[in-house]
Amino acid sequence: MKKVKVALLGIGTVGGGVWEILHTNREEILKNCGYEIEVEKILVKDVTKKRNTDIPQHLFTSNIEDILNNKEIEMVVEVMGGIEPAKEYILRSIKEGKHIVTANKALLANHGEEIMKTAREEGVKVYYEASVGGGIPIIHAMKESLGGNKIQEVKGILNGTTNYILTKMTQEKVDFPTVLKEAQDKGYAEADPTADVEGFDAAHKLTILSSLAFGISTKFHEVHREGISKITPIDIEYAKELGYVIKLLAIGKEKEGVIELRVHPTFVPKYHPLASVNDSFNAVFVKGNAVGELMFYGRGAGDLPTGSAVVGDMMAILKAQGNVAVEVLDNYSVEKIVKPISETEAEYYVRLIVKDKPGVLGKIASLFGESNVSLSSVIQKGEGDPSVSLVFLTHYAKEGNVQEAIKKIIAIEEVVELANLIPVENGQKVKEV
Amino acid sequence: MKKVKVALLGIGTVGGGVWEILHTNREEILKNCGYEIEVEKILVKDVTKKRNTDIPQHLFTSNIEDILNNKEIEMVVEVMGGIEPAKEYILRSIKEGKHIVTANKALLANHGEEIMKTAREEGVKVYYEASVGGGIPIIHAMKESLGGNKIQEVKGILNGTTNYILTKMTQEKVDFPTVLKEAQDKGYAEADPTADVEGFDAAHKLTILSSLAFGISTKFHEVHREGISKITPIDIEYAKELGYVIKLLAIGKEKEGVIELRVHPTFVPKYHPLASVNDSFNAVFVKGNAVGELMFYGRGAGDLPTGSAVVGDMMAILKAQGNVAVEVLDNYSVEKIVKPISETEAEYYVRLIVKDKPGVLGKIASLFGESNVSLSSVIQKGEGDPSVSLVFLTHYAKEGNVQEAIKKIIAIEEVVELANLIPVENGQKVKEV
Repeated sequence: MKKVKVALLGIGTVGGGVWEILHTNREEILKNCGYEIEVEKILVKDVTKKRNTDIPQHLFTSNIEDILNNKEIEMVVEVMGGIEPAKEYILRSIKEGKHIVTANKALLANHGEEIMKTAREEGVKVYYEASVGGGIPIIHAMKESLGGNKIQEVKGILNGTTNYILTKMTQEKVDFPTVLKEAQDKGYAEADPTADVEGFDAAHKLTILSSLAFGISTKFHEVHREGISKITPIDIEYAKELGYVIKLLAIGKEKEGVIELRVHPTFVPKYHPLASVNDSFNAVFVKGNAVGELMFYGRGAGDLPTGSAVVGDMMAILKAQGNVAVEVLDNYSVEKIVKPISETEAEYYVRLIVKDKPGVLGKIASLFGESNVSLSSVIQKGEGDPSVSLVFLTHYAKEGNVQEAIKKIIAIEEVVELANLIPVENGQKVKEV
Repeated sequence: MKKVKVALLGIGTVGGGVWEILHTNREEILKNCGYEIEVEKILVKDVTKKRNTDIPQHLFTSNIEDILNNKEIEMVVEVMGGIEPAKEYILRSIKEGKHIVTANKALLANHGEEIMKTAREEGVKVYYEASVGGGIPIIHAMKESLGGNKIQEVKGILNGTTNYILTKMTQEKVDFPTVLKEAQDKGYAEADPTADVEGFDAAHKLTILSSLAFGISTKFHEVHREGISKITPIDIEYAKELGYVIKLLAIGKEKEGVIELRVHPTFVPKYHPLASVNDSFNAVFVKGNAVGELMFYGRGAGDLPTGSAVVGDMMAILKAQGNVAVEVLDNYSVEKIVKPISETEAEYYVRLIVKDKPGVLGKIASLFGESNVSLSSVIQKGEGDPSVSLVFLTHYAKEGNVQEAIKKIIAIEEVVELANLIPVENGQKVKEV
């Protein structure tokens, strides 16, 4: 088992997420990259500050030299944000031969070329998956999987705060200042919301994506940028009437060597996959001349999602170094058992064909109850016909119990047949067993 | 510039796509992986068969030994499908030290472990991005970017044919046999549709995904499997009434070391991102303990999308070999210009506040026309009030022209102000300039 020592610059939201993932998922990380990752130092402004964490005090330092001069530290993870001193620390770390993982979109959008050029000269890697779309692996996909494509479009919902605000305005028909205030109170928006609300954050991310997509230099200052503060509930209503939703889109397109780069509120047709990306979710839509249309959807911010991207980058650097061939399909240590379908729990849709006689519903409902299956909805159609459809939606139940109930139910004289039994896949209100 | 020689086993739909991408995107491939890829041999059943391609005749062979014995061929791309002889050819290629790229889900779901074990012993790579989700880079994401996660769920719409059929049944309210027949006539479904319609294809793909997600051996024979042939328009109607759509989902979940593996028609709530995946599109939904919920959406089949995944794998193998550090943000050769926003073309939503006087609509429409902006919709609200909203949706127009028109329009006495101007992002009916 190999070990690698790393330093974190900053231990805010993202840094805290990285720390937590490194510890909670220690086993997965070791298995998937072949290294045990040890945090050796954490750079903070004030080492005496009270912190609500399990991080040992001796890891903290307020002196960057403790990290730069430590030859054992092979990788520096910059999660402090802002242009300076992050830029200086990254450049000096590179010159010390340390690899870099960064989540800093503002820095890359403004000084990405200088950083990458220095890294190339020094032979170290700079990875930055977390700078765009939080946990969504869009950077990796653009650099690797889509490398055989000419990318024609990259566009998306790249800022969670503004998407949250627009979603609330749409769903609750309240105006921008009211929702912004509420978002600030809940901590979803910053006290100074300019970077999010006026589209700077999305423009930083678009700068990075478009550099990758179209093979161009970073052009932050050429991105056309408008924020969402002028959007009113009236516009949202008209959009709805016309078949659209309003989203803050970041749009990059290339046609015959000419690029479009723009961030602005946009009418998105309701049928488009981007239209149903709500709340603080992010999504990136890519169009390549081979792959066609692709969309990546996920949490664009937050400690663990962004931390997931940072840790993924750390592992990618280690794998590239050590040439660890982690292969699959036969690379398992602990074997796991597959649950029989009868033990599966879900809500179920049950459609029966029954003879329309008094009392049949009561009999069936009782039989469900006897097998511990409780019902959430009943629909009866075609009243008066000799045979009618009787539809049930169950609460969470074991498939085995549902099958047991149905076996008894179809034995009732008034029940003609089981027309269909289909599980519901909810994905949200999963009952803990 | 380095060169690498490869062989294709098969030149059907996917093989044809690979050939086309290697030639059309030659420049991108060279830039992104540092190698020129040359197809040296193509294995076919009958070399004399008339083919409607530009492939030189001397590349074809019907003798696998021509490929196995050619030491210059470093990589074998298996796109012939089926279990045998694909399995034998892959195993023998591996033993000759050749890397493998394959799109063969049935083979991997049934014999993945034997193939991976042999590859490990011989020190070659076997990549298989194209085996699940066509062009969607889900395998790469699972192996690399999400390596720092404990994966809790992987589920998705993994078969395009059945999703096309269910979408048609939902939208046009026709029954399964009718839509299947139509799909067969159009070539969207096979003459023997069993593999798709009865869920075998989705189960193969779920086997591969779940092995990666949960670190288990391939368990194709333990996947619970039901097809869509029993679904009727009546069930689809009830689903709609209850707030659901019916999708053929492949579902893998892990909870405390116990796995669920099932493929069956499923009620998906309308608000869930999987619910709006229509036609032949595929989507994979992943839940990790750090990253949260992620979704990948794209074309699950077809020559170029699947070819994109195959070519991406070929490049990944070459990059891992040559250790080519292709970096971005400063790795551009030809510079490209950014189009000014005034030259951008889109449809636009324009909301004006006007005094409700006769003739105002005509004046405004004429001014749009003078600037070459034609209108697709007009909505007027609040009739009778002194000031009313007048909303226009334009056809495709240059933003510069729209701005010019608006400048003249707001100068009219009856126009109080421009309340909002928002571009539409359609993504489908893009007018060619």
